Amino acid sequence: MRVDINSDMGESFGPYRIGAESGRLMPHLTSANVACGFHAGDPRVMRDTVRLARAFGVGVGAHVGFPDRVGFGRRAMALSGEEIATDVLYQIGALYAFCREAGVPLRHVKAHGALYNLAERDEAVARALVEGVTRFGAPLVLVAPEGSAMAQAARAAGVPLAREAFADRAYRPDGTLMPRREPGSVITDPGEVARRAVRLVTEGTVESAGGGTVAVGVDTICVHGDTPGAEVLAAAIRQALAQAGVEVAPFPSPAGDPPPPSQVA
Amino acid sequence: MRVDINSDMGESFGPYRIGAESGRLMPHLTSANVACGFHAGDPRVMRDTVRLARAFGVGVGAHVGFPDRVGFGRRAMALSGEEIATDVLYQIGALYAFCREAGVPLRHVKAHGALYNLAERDEAVARALVEGVTRFGAPLVLVAPEGSAMAQAARAAGVPLAREAFADRAYRPDGTLMPRREPGSVITDPGEVARRAVRLVTEGTVESAGGGTVAVGVDTICVHGDTPGAEVLAAAIRQALAQAGVEVAPFPSPAGDPPPPSQVA
Amino acid sequence: MRVDINSDMGESFGPYRIGAESGRLMPHLTSANVACGFHAGDPRVMRDTVRLARAFGVGVGAHVGFPDRVGFGRRAMALSGEEIATDVLYQIGALYAFCREAGVPLRHVKAHGALYNLAERDEAVARALVEGVTRFGAPLVLVAPEGSAMAQAARAAGVPLAREAFADRAYRPDGTLMPRREPGSVITDPGEVARRAVRLVTEGTVESAGGGTVAVGVDTICVHGDTPGAEVLAAAIRQALAQAGVEVAPFPSPAGDPPPPSQVA
Amino acid sequence: MRVDINSDMGESFGPYRIGAESGRLMPHLTSANVACGFHAGDPRVMRDTVRLARAFGVGVGAHVGFPDRVGFGRRAMALSGEEIATDVLYQIGALYAFCREAGVPLRHVKAHGALYNLAERDEAVARALVEGVTRFGAPLVLVAPEGSAMAQAARAAGVPLAREAFADRAYRPDGTLMPRREPGSVITDPGEVARRAVRLVTEGTVESAGGGTVAVGVDTICVHGDTPGAEVLAAAIRQALAQAGVEVAPFPSPAGDPPPPSQVA
Repeated sequence: MRVDINSDMGESFGPYRIGAESGRLMPHLTSANVACGFHAGDPRVMRDTVRLARAFGVGVGAHVGFPDRVGFGRRAMALSGEEIATDVLYQIGALYAFCREAGVPLRHVKAHGALYNLAERDEAVARALVEGVTRFGAPLVLVAPEGSAMAQAARAAGVPLAREAFADRAYRPDGTLMPRREPGSVITDPGEVARRAVRLVTEGTVESAGGGTVAVGVDTICVHGDTPGAEVLAAAIRQALAQAGVEVAPFPSPAGDPPPPSQVA
Repeated sequence: MRVDINSDMGESFGPYRIGAESGRLMPHLTSANVACGFHAGDPRVMRDTVRLARAFGVGVGAHVGFPDRVGFGRRAMALSGEEIATDVLYQIGALYAFCREAGVPLRHVKAHGALYNLAERDEAVARALVEGVTRFGAPLVLVAPEGSAMAQAARAAGVPLAREAFADRAYRPDGTLMPRREPGSVITDPGEVARRAVRLVTEGTVESAGGGTVAVGVDTICVHGDTPGAEVLAAAIRQALAQAGVEVAPFPSPAGDPPPPSQVA
Repeated sequence: MRVDINSDMGESFGPYRIGAESGRLMPHLTSANVACGFHAGDPRVMRDTVRLARAFGVGVGAHVGFPDRVGFGRRAMALSGEEIATDVLYQIGALYAFCREAGVPLRHVKAHGALYNLAERDEAVARALVEGVTRFGAPLVLVAPEGSAMAQAARAAGVPLAREAFADRAYRPDGTLMPRREPGSVITDPGEVARRAVRLVTEGTVESAGGGTVAVGVDTICVHGDTPGAEVLAAAIRQALAQAGVEVAPFPSPAGDPPPPSQVA
Repeated sequence: MRVDINSDMGESFGPYRIGAESGRLMPHLTSANVACGFHAGDPRVMRDTVRLARAFGVGVGAHVGFPDRVGFGRRAMALSGEEIATDVLYQIGALYAFCREAGVPLRHVKAHGALYNLAERDEAVARALVEGVTRFGAPLVLVAPEGSAMAQAARAAGVPLAREAFADRAYRPDGTLMPRREPGSVITDPGEVARRAVRLVTEGTVESAGGGTVAVGVDTICVHGDTPGAEVLAAAIRQALAQAGVEVAPFPSPAGDPPPPSQVA
């Protein structure tokens, strides 16, 4: 048994730091979703984040979002499919340049914020996102939850999928996430999060909001970097997974594996 | 004898058109410098411009500039060398994605506006520009005037150079361009421009402002796309060059030749 | 009988010109909706547009839009009410500065593009728009179509309303505009547009798509500046209105009248 | 004897916080220079900062900067005088809107970062800055160091001046600041900073780098909000000034005094 742990990284901008704990969280990850300058990030932050990922042997992916910096890509925008596809393609290319510089493969793509939320359920948006990925013409994995419109669009286009699940979020009986604004939707106790992570990987299920059991496919577990103490959470997940005999390793990508860590945390 | 003709392309943005004659000018070029979204251009414009270049067998390069859209990259900015290098790398990657999509090689890089002007004479800026090019780790040609700090930095870094000259601009006796604001600095008569182009290629010289002769190395002649009637000028240059037995063809790039034209103008 | 003629102005940006005919269209208007730098416009364009309006005795208003320059404010964005109100307030203030400089009153506010479309029917967006207007604490008129959520929100907040109608657009029997993508939705014949303008003002009605008659309240007729030949259309409307005995003059605003023209077209 | 204490405020942006201690620093100030959305700040941050200033009876001014968000306005840009003047005017208007909303006067203008540095010694830039202020047509104070080109331009234009001095920075014998990159240029010991503040106000002098004494006119002392422990520094300065019998109060502005504090820190 094996699973990946991913987190959104590189969201600082200019003089502004977000996730000052990047250096602390990175050692616990196996994949990093790096912002590409549309909703967050800038060329210096991208350079640093890719280098940090390389130092820890963490796989690099493009975290693509809406062109809305002041809104951090969290506000839905009514872009056409072609606007989404070309914005995604642009962002992939920009990050790819920093991967080339660092000598690491660009392995995956994950949508950010409002683009992720829309592409979960809107087929046209999901297809446009995948279209942006396939236009790059290199083998990239899409990180997306099982059962989403994104997952469906990726399969239809022959794009490999890394199924994302959340150990720190409550699921509804239908396998979708309970919205953040609802009480009990976010789980903060590290022990409980770690237990859910183990169950996700070993049983492929999670306890749903009503107390029942729901099947959730998982290749990668998302750790939210903006949660206070995210590195503690990630460490707890890793330890519990190790004790349960689960290997924590980057999901396979046709783009290749990240190079081995070049330094120890 | 052989020479390339290059022009800045893809400078439209969102709803705004610049160089509406792109479709008219492109057939007369052999290289297109495509804006990358910092000083001009956007993902849709980049997509269209690269496709248009492919249709006419025109070589594609990244036209990299300062992050100053309202100033069109024409206002000098005091960026650090590292800021310039990473901004350049980002822009190269973004355009590269559209080249991949179109199935054409990204062949060259040319600085735009104030970045070009600074990098002509400022060694630190020139080195930073070249640093951005080499970090991409792919063989790219730098388009720059002979004798400039850019040319020197490219040679020092082992980056192939396409020496750029201007048939529509007056030269000073020292081989530098007469500033645009001085009277007589811009030559608009197509016949005169064409004659100067032929002399540049066949003799490697141009008549300088004072009436003397100055040696100017040339691999590529720049046609300013924002000059009214640029396509007439470009056509006149091509015709005169052909009559003088000069082959007009893309300068060589280690990245490869552009594919043959897929449609006739 | 009296009516105002308004048009969107000042949509150029940096090196990009839109509505190069600004100088031609302005003499035919009585109100100008000036872009404020979010979806279009920049400080130089704002300065020039306000000065041009003053020269022709045209009333100045803030044309407020979403912060989406590449999309020209035409793409809906899911902003919170507070984000809309503060964005609107910011834009009003910015334009107000140029009105102070030019010595003309800031008389009105009109939403642009996707913000206009949303605020027509979405009560929360409409209230947020009006909230942005009232927070400025100066008496400003809102330009909005009768029957819209905007009109309702303005009345509820005690903001004076200038009811906007369109002489070049087809109306549906319920008094709403036929969407642009439907055939026959845009009327281009100047004579027909002029006749509809006269009928709008003198009878308060327009022929609806099905051939019936629909009542449409009108204080100001919108001329789309991006229509080719907009100045011809505007001139035709003015002439026809004059012949019908309708006075063409700025709608009243508590902020005061524009100063008399300082130059003749 | 009387002096003002000013600090740069409202530099957060979208999801990014800078100066999280705003709420802690504000009670110690008498003037706040509020970023206007060009180099930092956004409409929500401007709203909040102006309200916070009102709550503590702190005078509000526009902190105007270059349009370079990723560079935080700290990189010199070669703008024309007219570009500077119109950019400044735009920013003043935008902040003025939030002052109107909050019911407080807009009292002053201070240049930020690279614009401040250029305007200290470049007469054309200084005139352009002052031109932007005077175009607003309301009585505003310019905050600038005595002896600078800014101070000279303000006097020439009849703009009232608040002479700014720095208690935490080393001065050179000619009365200019020692550059930050030189060792000993920034003084961090609160006691020493407080002593220098008292001497600045009571004697009008400061000990210069070489150990001599240099005369420095002062109406307002700048506290750098991005210094760790800025609120401790500001409190130490206030206490020392009080003990020395110096009144700490907003500098006079023709725009009027800030309203009295509406809440206690």
